[in-house]
Amino acid sequence: MTLLYTLEIIGTFVFAISGIRLAAKKEMDIFGVTVIGFVTAVGGGTTRDVLLGSYPVAWVQDINYPIAILLALPFTFIFRKYIVNMRRTFFVFDTVGIALFTISGMQKALNLGIHPGLAITMGMVSAVVGGVIRDILCNEIPLIFRKEIYATACLVGAIVFFLLEHYEVFSQNINYIATIITIIIIRVVAIKFNLSLPKMKV
Amino acid sequence: MTLLYTLEIIGTFVFAISGIRLAAKKEMDIFGVTVIGFVTAVGGGTTRDVLLGSYPVAWVQDINYPIAILLALPFTFIFRKYIVNMRRTFFVFDTVGIALFTISGMQKALNLGIHPGLAITMGMVSAVVGGVIRDILCNEIPLIFRKEIYATACLVGAIVFFLLEHYEVFSQNINYIATIITIIIIRVVAIKFNLSLPKMKV
Amino acid sequence: MTLLYTLEIIGTFVFAISGIRLAAKKEMDIFGVTVIGFVTAVGGGTTRDVLLGSYPVAWVQDINYPIAILLALPFTFIFRKYIVNMRRTFFVFDTVGIALFTISGMQKALNLGIHPGLAITMGMVSAVVGGVIRDILCNEIPLIFRKEIYATACLVGAIVFFLLEHYEVFSQNINYIATIITIIIIRVVAIKFNLSLPKMKV
Repeated sequence: MTLLYTLEIIGTFVFAISGIRLAAKKEMDIFGVTVIGFVTAVGGGTTRDVLLGSYPVAWVQDINYPIAILLALPFTFIFRKYIVNMRRTFFVFDTVGIALFTISGMQKALNLGIHPGLAITMGMVSAVVGGVIRDILCNEIPLIFRKEIYATACLVGAIVFFLLEHYEVFSQNINYIATIITIIIIRVVAIKFNLSLPKMKV
Repeated sequence: MTLLYTLEIIGTFVFAISGIRLAAKKEMDIFGVTVIGFVTAVGGGTTRDVLLGSYPVAWVQDINYPIAILLALPFTFIFRKYIVNMRRTFFVFDTVGIALFTISGMQKALNLGIHPGLAITMGMVSAVVGGVIRDILCNEIPLIFRKEIYATACLVGAIVFFLLEHYEVFSQNINYIATIITIIIIRVVAIKFNLSLPKMKV
Repeated sequence: MTLLYTLEIIGTFVFAISGIRLAAKKEMDIFGVTVIGFVTAVGGGTTRDVLLGSYPVAWVQDINYPIAILLALPFTFIFRKYIVNMRRTFFVFDTVGIALFTISGMQKALNLGIHPGLAITMGMVSAVVGGVIRDILCNEIPLIFRKEIYATACLVGAIVFFLLEHYEVFSQNINYIATIITIIIIRVVAIKFNLSLPKMKV
């Protein structure tokens, strides 16, 4: 669990940066930027916990989450020139972040004994809701509904994780790694070949 | 309870269709369309359950809700040409849907022994919040705040239902039917005579 | 506790007025205006209670909150001509309102034994989330993220309150008053000298 926890804190840090950067682009003040960073980082896990009635909500009783988010603020400011060039690095972190949130969300749900289909949904909720709230607070139609293959990667990763856990072929750490790699590959392939989901005409 | 449950699942299906259609009009991809359909269908009941602290949230432990929503997707696609002509049919379904959500929301609240005024509020929350979240995610001012007599119909229906339940004149099934008919009549009359609530000048 | 409770109901009333006025300016109908008034008034406390898993949510079992909000409706209408001239009066009420919500939010959190940094966050959530939801429902980027010193005042007030409580120098009523005065002074100074937080360039 220590590995997973460490990685979740890193995921929180990276998600906070993505919120901070969008808010700063929208010309928000320091406070607004901090809040957007905060909700981007904790929005998914909070929604999952509230839906599951799993109290206390993770960050409400663990000061490490807010600390990770507050550290993202000076980090983003100090390295603002390099972050553009660090796009590949962040892409990896961000993808690892959603992979970890997908996994931890699913595990929490499976531990509560709910239906696998709903556990997969909870994994996706953990991974994507933070970004959705970020976009709503910035008055944009959530990006994820428009062109990202992002959520599809989570979905496939969640299914892979469930199957690996269910059939207990490998140890849990290998399941984690296999899930993360699956999600990374899907995102890399999707971006390289400019794939997107079809639109629905009604 | 089986009748109420069946009708609630139908209501979920119809609400999902309304979300799917708006999202498709906004050129969202398949994923976005599914999510909007989902939150439109479950948003009201989820908000009610979270506010009441009534865990587990209905759909989180009952796979039939997600199934109803996922079925709405191919249904909307296959019958897209007919849905326009089916406007009357959908109007009836949709109105029955909000009526049922109003009733089931109130009953849950009344069973918890809260004040009738608040139970009526919970009935309305169940019926309208899904549509409000749908409109926010699509970056529109919620329609319901602008021109619909929709919520007023819920409110009157909720009061009628409370009075019928309170004075126990009829059996519960008759109370259901009387409430649904009340809500349908108000909506039909409102649309036929183009009624709307007055605006408030401040 | 009676003093705090009374003041919280007054805060609810004043917050409702701020929601009603914005919604009326957006040409919403009576229903929309009422709903916006409602969520503005209870949004912060509700979010805090849901995050803390502190059930029942305050207003869901106490009819006085909805009554205060419903009374705000005719009040705003009848005194609409005077409210513009009453700006100073409202500024005081509004500031007292956020101060009280900050205090009551912190106290609830501290009573649950959570970390002071998180309790301060909960105090701010209580004070500002209602206004954020109001702005989102009206399809605007929340004002608070753009130019208000509002949240900063809450933050400083919350820290002052925590320190006073922690070191038990004075009686609790004095702590309340000192916190409220701190928040009022910060807002008055900020408006008088047109202070705002710096923007973050990324």
